[in-house]
Amino acid sequence: MSELPVGATRRQIIDAAVRLIADHGFSATSVDQIAEAAGVAKGSVYYNFGSKADLFTSILTEGITRLTANLRTALETGPEPTPLERLVTALLRQIRDNPAFAKVVAAEVFRTGRDWQESIGLIHDQAMAVFAEAVGLGDPDLDPLDARVMGSAAFGATLVAGLEWLTYQPDRSPTDVLAAILRMVRRA
Amino acid sequence: MSELPVGATRRQIIDAAVRLIADHGFSATSVDQIAEAAGVAKGSVYYNFGSKADLFTSILTEGITRLTANLRTALETGPEPTPLERLVTALLRQIRDNPAFAKVVAAEVFRTGRDWQESIGLIHDQAMAVFAEAVGLGDPDLDPLDARVMGSAAFGATLVAGLEWLTYQPDRSPTDVLAAILRMVRRA
Repeated sequence: MSELPVGATRRQIIDAAVRLIADHGFSATSVDQIAEAAGVAKGSVYYNFGSKADLFTSILTEGITRLTANLRTALETGPEPTPLERLVTALLRQIRDNPAFAKVVAAEVFRTGRDWQESIGLIHDQAMAVFAEAVGLGDPDLDPLDARVMGSAAFGATLVAGLEWLTYQPDRSPTDVLAAILRMVRRA
Repeated sequence: MSELPVGATRRQIIDAAVRLIADHGFSATSVDQIAEAAGVAKGSVYYNFGSKADLFTSILTEGITRLTANLRTALETGPEPTPLERLVTALLRQIRDNPAFAKVVAAEVFRTGRDWQESIGLIHDQAMAVFAEAVGLGDPDLDPLDARVMGSAAFGATLVAGLEWLTYQPDRSPTDVLAAILRMVRRA
């Protein structure tokens, strides 16, 4: 593995860790297992990330930061007619491309008592803010607290319906699934 | 604790285990911690439930079975005008009354590679079927697969917005939160 650039090693470790943690949970996944699945030496995991908790914090913060950036781009531009539809579409695409990360987020985002609680809370806040912004756009009278609840409802609808699709109806086309979600998630 | 009836001991163990697992995860929670938090002897946990995995399987199947029964009642009757609104209301009430269980469901329902995967899959199916039925009621032309996706979207919207509320905006009134979710989750 020594011929790989550092960035590629980090990526292999992250991908292996997300897959294992999505299936078995953080505490049931060992650094040995992550190193083996990534095809790197155990020392390489510690060298690149510090502890297992630090690795997982990196995974969550990097992943949600990237997700938030993608959502912000979708908020501004895309083929769907409304900002909210563009966000739902972009989020569903991310879930399909990386279901393991979506499972980990669903598992961790509301836990308390974990080492990475604070950092995920801050980043989660930014992702939810994009959805709240989409809900509030064009409706200056909407209470920001209501926009926040509505935004998290749209986020949750897409997350759960997306994982439901991939776990239980994987043969359905993304277009059909997206259309069904958008029929449900619509401002009254 | 010997004066308590068996049902009460089981309930204490379940409540303590759900709280601990919601905060720290299944693998990071020990039977010692569960027994201590429940105020029972460690042997009592094994006597009532078998292994820690068996305890957690009992928690998930009993909890989702009770949830499904409550949802089915709400589907039939309640003050809200539509079946879907009654389901969202009933689910939000359950999340408020037992947020720890809601967190555990969010964490486990899409995992693979856990001992309780199969039983939670079956029970989850029944809970989602109630939502799909509510979405499909009065619309005989709706594709059942679409109803399923839409139902899981409504379930996910309520779950995530409900946990978001309790975790990040706990001072808001349940009425306001419910109204905001229902503004978002509405058939187009």
